[in-house]
Amino acid sequence: MVLTCAEIDQTLGLLLLREMQPFTVYATGSVRGILLGDNSMFQMLHRSAGQVRWQDVTPGVPFEVEPGMEIEAIRLPGGYPSYVSAERLAQSRAEEAVVGLAIRCGGRAVLFLPGLPAIDGALMERMEQSDLLLLDGTFWSDDEFIRVWPEARTARAIGHLPISGPGGTLERLAGLRRPRKIFIHINNTNPILDEDSAEYRAVREAGWDTGWDGMTITL
Amino acid sequence: MVLTCAEIDQTLGLLLLREMQPFTVYATGSVRGILLGDNSMFQMLHRSAGQVRWQDVTPGVPFEVEPGMEIEAIRLPGGYPSYVSAERLAQSRAEEAVVGLAIRCGGRAVLFLPGLPAIDGALMERMEQSDLLLLDGTFWSDDEFIRVWPEARTARAIGHLPISGPGGTLERLAGLRRPRKIFIHINNTNPILDEDSAEYRAVREAGWDTGWDGMTITL
Repeated sequence: MVLTCAEIDQTLGLLLLREMQPFTVYATGSVRGILLGDNSMFQMLHRSAGQVRWQDVTPGVPFEVEPGMEIEAIRLPGGYPSYVSAERLAQSRAEEAVVGLAIRCGGRAVLFLPGLPAIDGALMERMEQSDLLLLDGTFWSDDEFIRVWPEARTARAIGHLPISGPGGTLERLAGLRRPRKIFIHINNTNPILDEDSAEYRAVREAGWDTGWDGMTITL
Repeated sequence: MVLTCAEIDQTLGLLLLREMQPFTVYATGSVRGILLGDNSMFQMLHRSAGQVRWQDVTPGVPFEVEPGMEIEAIRLPGGYPSYVSAERLAQSRAEEAVVGLAIRCGGRAVLFLPGLPAIDGALMERMEQSDLLLLDGTFWSDDEFIRVWPEARTARAIGHLPISGPGGTLERLAGLRRPRKIFIHINNTNPILDEDSAEYRAVREAGWDTGWDGMTITL
């Protein structure tokens, strides 16, 4: 298991794996601190001697998860979840809050970016050299969440570039030719989930697929 | 939402209700302390002003959840989950660890006992006066969990009377006539989940049903 941040939707499922099967959790030291230090339920993942091994990950330093499969965490400019206490924030490193994953195996390159706050030149270059891009498709528009819930913030303010609009991912990545492109982490407010919508047609016509639970991809 | 203990399987689903819908969580003060005090993710349930109201429950003191529906928490002799720290245990009251619920509405009485460590005379009397009994069906036999996972403990040691065997719930409750009887909280090791099994036939022949997700009961 490789964690990209400490958000509930990226980490809570770990607790469903408690008790029996041994496995390794790869996460930055700061994310591990939030889960194991401030959420005692995560103790269930290492009470049984040897069930779970936690392995610290440093952005920019590749690690091997099994022979021939290498992963590198890519630092992204996102912040920590809003549930994290001020004391814990003071102990956490800014560069360990949100990462993407560059996965290399059998000569193929995959980019896994479920939460993408921004795209810089280095990341664009990685995208151009990848075979598969699994990209943050949380929101179609920047104000989408606010329209259903006035207390919410904009997509960009919570670390997600929207798909549409100026500077959105459809526009920014229109020139990307090499990778297969799939939107993942799609929020239930996002109209691309409706295959009869104009928004779904727009992403399909721009060369994107939308992911689904249980999807299998052969590279 | 009424919590009967702080076990992960009884509390984690609350986090899936975060953000929008307002609701009240009823729990003992000790269970609230474990969730809100030691698991920062549960802060997501009251960050948005007014989403969730936490209401302390005292075993033996009935409370009204809506007009005409009254609930009483019944003290049961179970302990706190193994993830709870020694410091938190020292601050927690033994009588607030595990409760059952007696629900009264429209002249009908329901007993909800998903974790039942023992049956005393007072509880037996409540059972005899109820219209519906939703009972701990975690394990068929006392050593069932150990047989698939040697590090586990017996059913009784983790707060669950088994269904079968001497002192098991089938035997103890064989004379119970008034309530409809349904086993709930059935572990995936329990053979009664297989409707072709001898164990399933045994509970059916003893007058018990087994619950399922989405079950609707009219009293």
